[in-house]
Amino acid sequence: MTDTWLTTLITDTPQAGFELAITLSRRAVKYTQPDAAVRERLRPIYSEDANALMAASQIVAINFQTIAAANDYWRK
Amino acid sequence: MTDTWLTTLITDTPQAGFELAITLSRRAVKYTQPDAAVRERLRPIYSEDANALMAASQIVAINFQTIAAANDYWRK
Amino acid sequence: MTDTWLTTLITDTPQAGFELAITLSRRAVKYTQPDAAVRERLRPIYSEDANALMAASQIVAINFQTIAAANDYWRK
Amino acid sequence: MTDTWLTTLITDTPQAGFELAITLSRRAVKYTQPDAAVRERLRPIYSEDANALMAASQIVAINFQTIAAANDYWRK
Amino acid sequence: MTDTWLTTLITDTPQAGFELAITLSRRAVKYTQPDAAVRERLRPIYSEDANALMAASQIVAINFQTIAAANDYWRK
Amino acid sequence: MTDTWLTTLITDTPQAGFELAITLSRRAVKYTQPDAAVRERLRPIYSEDANALMAASQIVAINFQTIAAANDYWRK
Repeated sequence: MTDTWLTTLITDTPQAGFELAITLSRRAVKYTQPDAAVRERLRPIYSEDANALMAASQIVAINFQTIAAANDYWRK
Repeated sequence: MTDTWLTTLITDTPQAGFELAITLSRRAVKYTQPDAAVRERLRPIYSEDANALMAASQIVAINFQTIAAANDYWRK
Repeated sequence: MTDTWLTTLITDTPQAGFELAITLSRRAVKYTQPDAAVRERLRPIYSEDANALMAASQIVAINFQTIAAANDYWRK
Repeated sequence: MTDTWLTTLITDTPQAGFELAITLSRRAVKYTQPDAAVRERLRPIYSEDANALMAASQIVAINFQTIAAANDYWRK
Repeated sequence: MTDTWLTTLITDTPQAGFELAITLSRRAVKYTQPDAAVRERLRPIYSEDANALMAASQIVAINFQTIAAANDYWRK
Repeated sequence: MTDTWLTTLITDTPQAGFELAITLSRRAVKYTQPDAAVRERLRPIYSEDANALMAASQIVAINFQTIAAANDYWRK
């Protein structure tokens, strides 16, 4: 993968950080399965299966830990 | 998603922080499955399946780690 | 949920902290499934299924990380 | 559960800390399923199923993070 | 395994760190299953099964936490 | 288990730390299932099942977090 998609973990707001966490989660899937057609075929499974939605939420939570720490929890 | 729903991780009490952790967990699901009707159809699975409830509790635990750190564990 | 059940993460001993971690784990389930009758019906699954017991132990471990950090690991 | 089983997270060596992590993992199971007879019945599942052994190893890893941090990683 | 593949956790950019996290995730699989032919046979499962892709994304997220902390979140 | 197998978390290189993380992951399994014959029987499951390999990789990732922190990420 040669495109640049991640240059900083710093965001203006917690919400932007949360959305970046979602981006990280999806990018990891993309690295493992680079074929967009396959990912497209799997999309209904992700988004309509309760367990997969839970798994997605958990990955976001882990990535959000990283991003929140990077931003010192947007405390200032 | 254009609405603003997360402006701070700081809460007055640990309990409010725990409830914010629940909000984060649900929001991640909402980002993955924006269609409210589909989420509504899946709700009984989340709430009446033991494994799904455990998974939900785990996601909350991870998000609560983040929020508790952000609030310096409400120590003062 | 309007009752107050979590006012501090500070406990006198590591064991009390561990027991608070169990409380947090159960509370998350309660938020997701507020109906006590449904939870009661699911209880045998939690407590008699090896995988569910493992899942419960993992959630407690995650919550205990938070509480132990909050208490500076009861070092003093 | 009224007995005292956890008075400190501090151990002399990393190995003693790792073994304490195992104790924490088992104790969480015991809190969820206090009946020793049921736990005994489930034991073969824990110890002879590859997935359950992996789950056990993961819980130990999480608890070991906590204990290692408490001991400042036995650096001195 | 005698080859040297990991000499530093420091990377120039968050994206390079994320890609190192993917390397760590794959290396762990390689240590557990050193036979390339077996891994090759399993590859379609990893990359075409929604749950396995989620699992992969989660492992990357955990390794990225480590690498991001090592790089002080590329804050400077 | 009376043998001494873990006297320090400090390693010379990140790679040695990663390999120690693998040792920790396996040791936890050994504590739960001390019978080598049973573990041997389960080995093909660990090493030829995609989900089990993912689980193994995740446990290594968690243990590597601990070891990397102990070594201050081999920054110096």
